[in-house]
Amino acid sequence: MSAPSPNEQLYVGVELCASSARAALVNPAGEVLASREAALAGGDLAPQIARLVSELRDSAPAPARAIGVGVPGLVNPQTGRVVISSDIPAVVREDLRAALAQATGLPVALDNDANAGALGEYAAGAGRGSRNMFYVTIGTGIGGALILDGRLWHGASGFAGEFGHITIDPEGIECTCGNVGCLETVASAPNIVRRTHERLMRDSTSSLSRLGLNKNFTAADIAHEARGGDDFAAMMMARTGRYIGTAIAAVINLLNTERVVLGGAVMDAGEIILDPIIQEARRRSFQPNFESTQIVAATLGHDAVPIGAALLARDAAQQGG
Amino acid sequence: MSAPSPNEQLYVGVELCASSARAALVNPAGEVLASREAALAGGDLAPQIARLVSELRDSAPAPARAIGVGVPGLVNPQTGRVVISSDIPAVVREDLRAALAQATGLPVALDNDANAGALGEYAAGAGRGSRNMFYVTIGTGIGGALILDGRLWHGASGFAGEFGHITIDPEGIECTCGNVGCLETVASAPNIVRRTHERLMRDSTSSLSRLGLNKNFTAADIAHEARGGDDFAAMMMARTGRYIGTAIAAVINLLNTERVVLGGAVMDAGEIILDPIIQEARRRSFQPNFESTQIVAATLGHDAVPIGAALLARDAAQQGG
Repeated sequence: MSAPSPNEQLYVGVELCASSARAALVNPAGEVLASREAALAGGDLAPQIARLVSELRDSAPAPARAIGVGVPGLVNPQTGRVVISSDIPAVVREDLRAALAQATGLPVALDNDANAGALGEYAAGAGRGSRNMFYVTIGTGIGGALILDGRLWHGASGFAGEFGHITIDPEGIECTCGNVGCLETVASAPNIVRRTHERLMRDSTSSLSRLGLNKNFTAADIAHEARGGDDFAAMMMARTGRYIGTAIAAVINLLNTERVVLGGAVMDAGEIILDPIIQEARRRSFQPNFESTQIVAATLGHDAVPIGAALLARDAAQQGG
Repeated sequence: MSAPSPNEQLYVGVELCASSARAALVNPAGEVLASREAALAGGDLAPQIARLVSELRDSAPAPARAIGVGVPGLVNPQTGRVVISSDIPAVVREDLRAALAQATGLPVALDNDANAGALGEYAAGAGRGSRNMFYVTIGTGIGGALILDGRLWHGASGFAGEFGHITIDPEGIECTCGNVGCLETVASAPNIVRRTHERLMRDSTSSLSRLGLNKNFTAADIAHEARGGDDFAAMMMARTGRYIGTAIAAVINLLNTERVVLGGAVMDAGEIILDPIIQEARRRSFQPNFESTQIVAATLGHDAVPIGAALLARDAAQQGG
């Protein structure tokens, strides 16, 4: 954290989650000067986010110039409206951008949370120094975003980056998206837990695992046991990594990106998942493409989305004049 | 074909294949004015291509300004050298660009053949009117190329577009690239033939197929029988289409391209393969992404690569001054 000069332009970046929001005051270099979090109640989101932003502005050393919001859902870049959000279905009915702009008196930029996270890591985290980056976030769901030639790639209608819905197992289980065997159906946190429960039930050797003692374990618990030397838990994390690595190989083959940055709660597991991801990506990608790609862990943690959202606000404000 | 004015700038586009080369004289609008084909002997390629180009220039109504060559292999855009070519391994030892420029006295642009084909279809074929296009060519091998925001996407080191090596079946057979279960191992022409032989051997119902009468059928024969009403042949083509559609869904999800253009000899089969491709891509892609994409057959046939190569030469000549 650096002390801002009174003339420095500051931006507010907001990460919207299913039941909470996190806002950060960010300088143009992508550094977080202050942050606040609040639980979200039912009803319209704009007034609740406006309150959070207002508290943050009260403590700001300089005025905030614009607000950026990262939303878990598809955002139509033309209208600025959220088209689909499985995490916050109600947000589709709200014109969040317009309402938040009116409530705060500031310009508001809205984008998908994975896009915001990608921009954050690109500008201030593990993506620094690259021009072409693929960002993946693996948690409750799996998101992706692309920086191509230094700019966020939105695609023809703003829906690029749906990495979690790449088919990994053509004969796999049903996904919420309607497809079967999507990456998300095997590698998201709830699905790591599901697969682990299924293996514990049918595999007698797994009785040696400490996970069998606890019916309500989480993906973080599996990672914890794996790091602690539990072979069964380690195998489940390694297999998860191999699924993710297979999908990453497809991206490397197709786009020849120079860096792949992996974030989200599942990646908190560290090497026990990152190493198998890299191994499988190497095995399944064209050698020259693999060799020109670095696959690394994200470094900004919970700050990635707020920082990226703030930078989206900065870019929109600069383009707007 | 239109009559060129004597001042019109013309370009030569060359498609290099395993045992032949095809050259076309192309105007800046991407129209073919004349073309020639020649078998390739062993030894250096540059003198043989120079001879073909020279014959074409002799018949040209205006001087050709530059040459573009589409090569079946990876091309390093920095050095202009072919890095890997499974079809023409010897081309890696030759500095084709420099040697051809010296032999003809014209500037030479070199790129991967799928990239050239994509540019051809984009400028003068099925890609016209789009800004973001994914091009796939399915023949002996499977290639891919991307036009993003109106420009060829080469990737960090020039190797983007390796669509044939996306994993479709994680437990599939070995691919020449070292991976297992690549799209190419199930959907290229030789692999359609292999899968069909395997099914004929183990499936008694397939004895009803006319394909069982001929041991040396090709992928084109299978397509021919399928169009003629042979249910077994139709099933083999439909399954092939579903594999391709699965991989295309990954691209649509990831990049949200507005058009997918499918070319190459396997696509000559027509609707019996295109329809299952579209069906499977719909089933396996995010609905908003699918809805913003048109999936269509290429329209330029054998002219796509020479036209695109000529346009690469045009663009390089214009950039060079």
